[in-house]
Amino acid sequence: MSRVYNFCAGPAALPEAVLKQAQSELLDWHGKGLSVMEMSHRGDEFTSIAATAEQDLRDLLGVPDNYKVLFMQGGASQQFAQIPLNFLAEGATADYIDTGIWSRKSIEEASRFGNINVAASAKEYDYFAIPGQNEWQLSKDAAYVHYASNETIGGLQFDWTPQTGDTPLVVDMSSDILSKPLQVCRYGMIYAGAQKNIGPSGLVVAIVREDLLGRARASCPTMLNYKVAADNGSMYNTPPTFSWYLSGLVFKWLKEQGGLEAMAKINHAKQALLYQTIDASDFYSNPVASNARSWMNVPFRLADAKLDKAFLAGADERGLLNLKGHRSVGGMRASIYNAVSLEAVEALVAYMQEFEKERA
Amino acid sequence: MSRVYNFCAGPAALPEAVLKQAQSELLDWHGKGLSVMEMSHRGDEFTSIAATAEQDLRDLLGVPDNYKVLFMQGGASQQFAQIPLNFLAEGATADYIDTGIWSRKSIEEASRFGNINVAASAKEYDYFAIPGQNEWQLSKDAAYVHYASNETIGGLQFDWTPQTGDTPLVVDMSSDILSKPLQVCRYGMIYAGAQKNIGPSGLVVAIVREDLLGRARASCPTMLNYKVAADNGSMYNTPPTFSWYLSGLVFKWLKEQGGLEAMAKINHAKQALLYQTIDASDFYSNPVASNARSWMNVPFRLADAKLDKAFLAGADERGLLNLKGHRSVGGMRASIYNAVSLEAVEALVAYMQEFEKERA
Repeated sequence: MSRVYNFCAGPAALPEAVLKQAQSELLDWHGKGLSVMEMSHRGDEFTSIAATAEQDLRDLLGVPDNYKVLFMQGGASQQFAQIPLNFLAEGATADYIDTGIWSRKSIEEASRFGNINVAASAKEYDYFAIPGQNEWQLSKDAAYVHYASNETIGGLQFDWTPQTGDTPLVVDMSSDILSKPLQVCRYGMIYAGAQKNIGPSGLVVAIVREDLLGRARASCPTMLNYKVAADNGSMYNTPPTFSWYLSGLVFKWLKEQGGLEAMAKINHAKQALLYQTIDASDFYSNPVASNARSWMNVPFRLADAKLDKAFLAGADERGLLNLKGHRSVGGMRASIYNAVSLEAVEALVAYMQEFEKERA
Repeated sequence: MSRVYNFCAGPAALPEAVLKQAQSELLDWHGKGLSVMEMSHRGDEFTSIAATAEQDLRDLLGVPDNYKVLFMQGGASQQFAQIPLNFLAEGATADYIDTGIWSRKSIEEASRFGNINVAASAKEYDYFAIPGQNEWQLSKDAAYVHYASNETIGGLQFDWTPQTGDTPLVVDMSSDILSKPLQVCRYGMIYAGAQKNIGPSGLVVAIVREDLLGRARASCPTMLNYKVAADNGSMYNTPPTFSWYLSGLVFKWLKEQGGLEAMAKINHAKQALLYQTIDASDFYSNPVASNARSWMNVPFRLADAKLDKAFLAGADERGLLNLKGHRSVGGMRASIYNAVSLEAVEALVAYMQEFEKERA
């Protein structure tokens, strides 16, 4: 079979050019006679791969010098514990914003380690809109403010950056990092599981302002301590070398595409085409407020849910894969991360219009 | 360049047949039109890959039904914290055996979470021999006894299994799991970082007796709780899917080789040839007591350390790579895990004899 159009929410599609390069050098990296997977992480070859990946990521995001870039394991879910263990002293309070399933998970885990104030919740809008900052009830002395910039299941995304003054802003960008330019200096910490816009699962990238390091609790496991990771160049122990390498190939690919300004243009075009198609029809619908619609994950429903099965079967036949919505919300969901091309979205839209004509 | 003989201590050599299969299906797994890296971990394809890998591992090791097999992240170093967080109640004591750098690291980390009794240490033998169990000072009510079956840096390996009665025995088998048959039922828990005998780095496998689950401290991060991992089939969050898949290919390859009985025969032959070469010469030496010599990591010294550089340069020229000893001990080290063939060891031995003839 040829390659399909893959709308999977994660682990998600990767750029074909990246996979081809990884394939070509899988047994013999740069004539060294061995795979990247078989290299010592402390050898010249891998340390060069690792450093280049970090530099390319810094270039793409414009990461200031006073931020460390960490390559870790355990996904965003492990960060949900690491963040309070590193930044929240015993008895202190942190503010969290609830905009959906992922931010609620981060709140639940953080609540096991300290006082968590849910400063705002999208619940009052049935999770179809994001409360504006004028509605937030921030604490006076919060250790930090945490939010998720994009909710993959509800399809909700911030199109603005919260203002928290001197209180460090911590953001889960697992599902929209690298999709458009970013002002890193507005954050205390940015983190992202790799398996959407960065690379294969098993890697999580964190960008941490240096002055926030060194505050971990005594009870923080060594492997979960950001300062230990920073002091050891993310190699306190053996890192996930292949995921790191492949992410580096993705960073190179993003640079070749023209960087994040160029990606933002393409991503804008992709989501605009898809939402316009949905909005132009009574057959398809998306309930999210227009200023909170995700550019990365577009959930939509058919007017008649009895047609869902036929829609998905027809999509599969056309090589449009993984369009089934999350089990908690039903319907459809098209995840259109960086590696999903405009061409893929055009093929999806063509199929949606064809299906509507036949079945409406 | 053709493939080299790779004696790296880890991430270590992988079977060439495994890498070739991964390469052939890297962009299109089984005609599905996408890479394993691009699949939802909850989809039919990946859940089948995951289940097959687990079953093959169970078959190879003869894992009894009352043990869970967990696929996690963070390497053995994260386990050093997870083990006390899961098994050691506040105020309780655990026994640890010190046989080298890795077991000392596990002791250091565990000591941050409870009372650790170092029941025996190879220090009294300059780490060249393992204290017999008659020399161990086990606690009366230890929560568990922990040891490392193989020390990669010192080149020390247990050729026997400790007897701890009703006290669960916990073993770090990162560097010798799957190298020979094993009686899983003698252990409460076996764990191993993948990057020596299992697969790529970024994955750690744990085999845990079911009755030991559910004892985690309230302060244990959810992602570090073995019961959570077990209850969710190691998919509480997105697992490292590509590493899991590739490990599954390694398990299949081991079965094709004839399983662990067959691997034990080959591994016996490899280490015998290498140690015999060392012992037959005054030019090379290894200080470890014969019953504690590692089958996996063979450190050796040249009588004249000034020749080390020339030895390594000549080895590199012949495609015998990564023979430099760990910086803490110097000299040479040949790591001869499962994927390093007898042919590779024969090539090394031939070079050692040639070098000795020229330079002795």
